[in-house]
Amino acid sequence: MDAPNGSQNSEQTLDSEVKAFFDSAPPLHNSNDVIQKLNHFIQLNSSPSENGVGRRIVCVTSGGTTAPLEQRCVRYVDNFSSGHRGATSTEYFLKAGYAVIFLYRRGSFQPFCRSLPGDPLLECFEATEGLNIQVREAYSKAVKTAIVDHHAAVASGLLLKLPFSTVFEYLQMLQIISRPMKDIGPCAMFYLAAAVSDYYVPWKDMVEHKIQSDGSYLLDVKLVQVPKMLSVLRKDWAPLAFCISFKLETDTNILLNKARGALEKYNMHAVVANELSTRKEKVVVVTIDDKITVTRDKSKADDDVENPLIKLLSQRHSSYIEDSKRMR
Amino acid sequence: MDAPNGSQNSEQTLDSEVKAFFDSAPPLHNSNDVIQKLNHFIQLNSSPSENGVGRRIVCVTSGGTTAPLEQRCVRYVDNFSSGHRGATSTEYFLKAGYAVIFLYRRGSFQPFCRSLPGDPLLECFEATEGLNIQVREAYSKAVKTAIVDHHAAVASGLLLKLPFSTVFEYLQMLQIISRPMKDIGPCAMFYLAAAVSDYYVPWKDMVEHKIQSDGSYLLDVKLVQVPKMLSVLRKDWAPLAFCISFKLETDTNILLNKARGALEKYNMHAVVANELSTRKEKVVVVTIDDKITVTRDKSKADDDVENPLIKLLSQRHSSYIEDSKRMR
Repeated sequence: MDAPNGSQNSEQTLDSEVKAFFDSAPPLHNSNDVIQKLNHFIQLNSSPSENGVGRRIVCVTSGGTTAPLEQRCVRYVDNFSSGHRGATSTEYFLKAGYAVIFLYRRGSFQPFCRSLPGDPLLECFEATEGLNIQVREAYSKAVKTAIVDHHAAVASGLLLKLPFSTVFEYLQMLQIISRPMKDIGPCAMFYLAAAVSDYYVPWKDMVEHKIQSDGSYLLDVKLVQVPKMLSVLRKDWAPLAFCISFKLETDTNILLNKARGALEKYNMHAVVANELSTRKEKVVVVTIDDKITVTRDKSKADDDVENPLIKLLSQRHSSYIEDSKRMR
Repeated sequence: MDAPNGSQNSEQTLDSEVKAFFDSAPPLHNSNDVIQKLNHFIQLNSSPSENGVGRRIVCVTSGGTTAPLEQRCVRYVDNFSSGHRGATSTEYFLKAGYAVIFLYRRGSFQPFCRSLPGDPLLECFEATEGLNIQVREAYSKAVKTAIVDHHAAVASGLLLKLPFSTVFEYLQMLQIISRPMKDIGPCAMFYLAAAVSDYYVPWKDMVEHKIQSDGSYLLDVKLVQVPKMLSVLRKDWAPLAFCISFKLETDTNILLNKARGALEKYNMHAVVANELSTRKEKVVVVTIDDKITVTRDKSKADDDVENPLIKLLSQRHSSYIEDSKRMR
């Protein structure tokens, strides 16, 4: 069963798929709380400061989403993503003067925490003889960065963290975020680094209880495509926002064509193309008239590819804001 | 396609399914390291102490396993399990004098750490004015328990922690663990609290690269049943070990029958039946001639259902060891 390809019907099809997705999604538990935090955050940061302009605000999405296979969820399909890209980029966006809404998968990497080991509390601390606890020498810098810089960003009102797990939560929250972001027009950026499920089981099609495994040797799971919300974000949710999406592939041969395809199909301002095995060293920023390779400065041990990447995108975003003003 | 039901063929079928599973599994990266640690741990703890007997050793499995859908894994089917049961039980097994091999899913709950919040480093610590870091008052007890008690258990050689992610890693490690455990006969216990995937995609059937989502509206994932390794563990891997498995259901109506079925089918010494919504309050221990309901002592705020549960299982294990001696 293929999606209809005729361009005449495709917009209608997308609209009905989007409606079906949101109709089928379980309601977001804490939506009022999220809306309140968001409105406060955006109001605070978009108010004109001394120089007469508000801050630019970026929504960074990070980590993978899950697609539940059962309503009382025991099994789900997950997309691998450590959230390293989103967490690191958030640090550089803050450095570049942005306020950041960090929409992240629970348990994924957090900004200022990427030098920590997997289980930081148990690995970074030790008990002294008097049964006091102290930071192990080897981790003292990483622990200090994590706690001091992270808390400073949150406390200064420049970093708002919102967690998700399922693809239903993620897309509902992205829609909620886009509402106040729409109001700040071209000063808003979406930096969509999350690895969003391509397929889901509509909530109403799901069995309520745990799928029983006895008897049947074969399990056949049928999933339908998650509607391409990038199109909806650009077209309806926040049409003036500067939008960056990502394309991750394990096969280099198809990567750039796929990135170019996504750029045109979803009308993105740029698509960041990255290959799984080299993604911390190099990415290619694909725009409508450019293909810019961005690499980590290897002469510095602790440089990140996100450093030049966010510099480039921040410049492009500035030009975009200027262009928007001229066109008014 | 159903598994053949004729009992005549079922053992042969299982053997060939087990062979197919292990043949299809990617080799375990660090198996030599795991084997070395295990042998050392079991030798240390099974050596007769002052009272002339070795320690009892339990392998506690904990958390859910994943079943990859692609070889260079981006997507996988995951089983939800926080690992709370396994982590808590490990604490009570240590208290009861056992040495514990804790085979756990990366990122799941760790022993002595269950009172901590989701992101302990960022939530339990704060920066002081001089940019030093300190534990927040509200978490000082939880942080101290986590670091002091956890490190003491590992340092004293009573707790060996081995992580897994995929169902391939889990079952290969369980087999490796069973080898030296077999040598200590009835003094070994397997406490199989992990939520193991029922279905997997054989490695050779997997696509190498990321499944492409464009074009097709429907994704049809075909998985085959993971062979029932509990049978193999009881029959071949460690026939004298005391074996406890778990049955978790969301539907109370079928729970006890399923537990009873598992007891007989896999020849377990006990099956712990638990219902998703009440699992921290109550479990039912199903044995061949008993059904014992075990409940948390609600008069104590911090009692756990694992407290009476591990006491009961430890007693049963003692009787089992005595019986085994008499039968020699």
